[in-house]
Order: sequence, then structure tokens, then C-alpha cells
Amino acid sequence: MTRNIKLVVEYDGTGYCGFQDQGRPDRPTIQSVLQEALARTCQEPVQVIGAGRTDAGVHARGQVVNFHTRSRIPVERFPAAVNTQLPWDIKVREAAEVPGDFHARYWALSKTYRYTWLVRATPSPFWHRYALFVPRPVDVEKMRRAARHFVGEHDFAAFRSTGGGSKSTVRRMYRADVWRENDLVHFEIEGSGFLYNMVRIMAGTLLEVGLGRRSAECVPKALASGRREELGSTAPPHGLTLMAVAYPDGGGLENPEESASTG
Amino acid sequence: MTRNIKLVVEYDGTGYCGFQDQGRPDRPTIQSVLQEALARTCQEPVQVIGAGRTDAGVHARGQVVNFHTRSRIPVERFPAAVNTQLPWDIKVREAAEVPGDFHARYWALSKTYRYTWLVRATPSPFWHRYALFVPRPVDVEKMRRAARHFVGEHDFAAFRSTGGGSKSTVRRMYRADVWRENDLVHFEIEGSGFLYNMVRIMAGTLLEVGLGRRSAECVPKALASGRREELGSTAPPHGLTLMAVAYPDGGGLENPEESASTG
Repeated sequence: MTRNIKLVVEYDGTGYCGFQDQGRPDRPTIQSVLQEALARTCQEPVQVIGAGRTDAGVHARGQVVNFHTRSRIPVERFPAAVNTQLPWDIKVREAAEVPGDFHARYWALSKTYRYTWLVRATPSPFWHRYALFVPRPVDVEKMRRAARHFVGEHDFAAFRSTGGGSKSTVRRMYRADVWRENDLVHFEIEGSGFLYNMVRIMAGTLLEVGLGRRSAECVPKALASGRREELGSTAPPHGLTLMAVAYPDGGGLENPEESASTG
Repeated sequence: MTRNIKLVVEYDGTGYCGFQDQGRPDRPTIQSVLQEALARTCQEPVQVIGAGRTDAGVHARGQVVNFHTRSRIPVERFPAAVNTQLPWDIKVREAAEVPGDFHARYWALSKTYRYTWLVRATPSPFWHRYALFVPRPVDVEKMRRAARHFVGEHDFAAFRSTGGGSKSTVRRMYRADVWRENDLVHFEIEGSGFLYNMVRIMAGTLLEVGLGRRSAECVPKALASGRREELGSTAPPHGLTLMAVAYPDGGGLENPEESASTG
């Protein structure tokens, strides 16, 4: 009998060419490394479906994937078993058996992304991989005002790099906030879905607003006009992290409490 | 005229053979990399004196060093100037001019070290370099009780690996605490000085106490007996960070407010 297994996965994306496999063994992806580790664990070829196709260099604390397998390994043993096959920069946090038709991408109700800046005079070895270094003060209140314009259903055509294949550019954002935590400034946004490079264009725009180089009003203007050039540059990938993916009824589980959480 | 410059330095020690230069170019040290960067900045050879000789793989958020130079670079420009010459994993946070007889090691009143464990079922890519992974629950209250026995003036002969050259093994600990922060457990200790591997033996012992493999009473017993074998194993270096070094009157400065802080 085939089972459908959902995994919550964390990764440091620094060393990878993004989530999505590109069929090039010289360019490792999160998907290809996960598939190889799962194939060794399950002793059969495995096809991994990811909720979010994160770019090269983007990290995840709560990426969700699913795969079908005939392996009889008890689901609660999956995280430890797969983790012994994975490198240090990709780890499985949780595993759960889900209904056969669960699909990590199609079933996702929302995704939450976070962009982080290190705002101080000198760079930090400890944030080098995870935050964009900004050696000038930023106005967090202005950034927050700009970010709140993202909330609601809008046509985000202006917030897209060429190369994304989506037909509709309408998405719904459920919440958007900007806050300071010591030397860090975080931007977090939850939405129904995101266009290609959308969060990084949002982050690049918010930084320019915070530095006083652009007005917060550029956001409603660009939402109305659909013009990419009214926004800031695309922020580099290493400041971005996929935080969580939400599903109906606790992730497509019959009994969410039974999932092998490792919290 | 020669000036004496004090620097506060942060580093990720993963890629280095400790702080202290060993005269082997194939084994880079924090000291050798700092000296090379400062020599390029000051355009003359520079000898760096460090407050704490951290082991290979140990990190620092507040290491303090000093060096003498005839360079006329204004002190407030030192952090940015040196940082352009340093790799991502070593960065200068602050610079200040100090009296000619200031010595980063001899003048230090106390040093604060922190040891961090990641206590949960699965390892984390984000803490892989900075915390020891512990996949079993620990009793933080027992660890705290054991740690409090460190406070005061004691003969720490039992808390030393062979290889340390100190004659006296008496040290004074000003505070010691253990606390939980989400999935992390931290042990932080401030003392007048530390013997070779002393904090790592303390941390290894506290973990065994937390796991129920050793009683908190082993600490006063080992302090009385001086027997290394009554304590736990030496914890691995990557969980350890030198947090701060304290000096009289704000670091040997005439006017601490004038230091080029980058907080």
C-alpha cells in the first residue's frame, strides 16, 4: 500500500540552487538532496513535492513537502531516519501521514515569509548568511506603513520579475508587519501565494522607504499602475526565509495531534 | 607617535584553529588574520594582544584585543577600514584609543562565556555551528543548581585539561546561570579568569547533570577533591562563545563615551 507522507523541512539555502530540481547534478537543489536522502531511507525512488519553490540562497524554517512511498517505516521514525541521510544544512523537523490526495503546493492555504536586515554600523559574522547588512539607520515606522498597503486582495503585477509563469497576478495578503529586534529589522508577510521574486521586491522597496529614498505611497501607486519601475530593487536572497505553510485542518491530517512533531 | 588601540571583535570560530597564532600558515588563527588585516590597514606590521585565547571552533561576540600603531587613521574609522580587509567570519565592532599601558589580557577584570545547547528531537541547520545538539530532555533547574556551585572563589584544579600552563588554579566566579530560550538552553558564567578548557568541562558536567547521569553535588565534590574524573566530559567547542570582557573604568578609556561604538 502506498502512503502519502508530509514533512516539515528546515534548510540553510546558502549552498543550494534553490528548492526546485533543475536536472543538473552539478547544481544541487533542496529537492534533489531530499529525494536522494528519502530514496535511501525508503529504499525506492521518491518524488518530492514542495509547497514553496524558494530561490537560490533563500532559507526555510517551515517548508512543507510531501511524497508517496511504499516504505513501512513508522511515520514517527521518519525525521530521525531521514536526518541521518541529510547534510547539516537540510533537516526534517516533523513527519505525518496525510490523505492520499494531499498535495503540498495545491493544498496550501497560505505561506509566511520573513525578510531580515541587520541594521548597525558593522557587519556580523553571525548574521552574514541570514540578514542583509544595512549600515545606515532606517525608519521602521515608515516601512511598517508601506508594508500595510500590501494587505488585502490586489493585482501584484508590479511585484514580479520576468521569468515567473503565473497567469493571474492577483494574490491575497493576510498580514504584513515590520518590527525591530535589537540590531535586526524583520518584515513578515502571510499571503495566499507569491509571484516570482515578489517578497524580495517588497523587501527591496521597504528598505528604500526606510532609508528615505522612496515614499511609502509608491506601494499603492505601483499596485494601481502595475509598473515594476515604481518599486525598489529586488532584495538579495540570503535575507529571506520561508517561515511556515498553512493547510486546512492542521495540514491535511485526520488527527493533527498524532503528527510526529518535534517542537 | 605610537597609539594603543583597543578593538571589540566578533567571530565565527568554525574555520579557525583558535585565537592564538601558532606560526603555521596552513592553520589560520583569529590572531593571524586580524594581524594581516591590521597590517594592511595601518601599513606596518602589527602585533595583536587578545583578552581570551579561545580554542579552535569557539566563537566570540565580545573578544577584546589591543595593538600599538603609528598609523594616523582616526579611531572612529578603524572598524569600517579594518572590516573591508577581514573575511566575513571575523568583524570589528568597536575601536577606541586607550592608554599606552593598556593590555587586553592583563587589564581584564572578568570574562563572560556562554555555552548553548539545542534541546529538541531534530537538529537545526541554523544552530549547527553555534549550539550542541541534544535530542533528549534536560532538567534546567538541576543544571542551574549545579552551576550555582561555581560562584565564589574556588580551586578549579579539577576543571582543567592537561596542557594549560597556569600555576595557580584558584579563580573567582562572579555569576553563573542556566536558562531556557525556546529550544535553546544557555549556560553563562562570568569569572576573573578561566583555566584551559574550564568552561567546556563545566558545560559537559552540567549537561550530564541535566540528563540525570550525574548529581549536581559532583560540583562541590570535585571543587574539594580536585579530581577531574568526578566531572563530565569536555563539551565540544562549537557551543561556546566568549560574550564580553570587562575592564576598569569602561575598558581603560579616559572617556568611555568617546569610544567609536557601533551598537
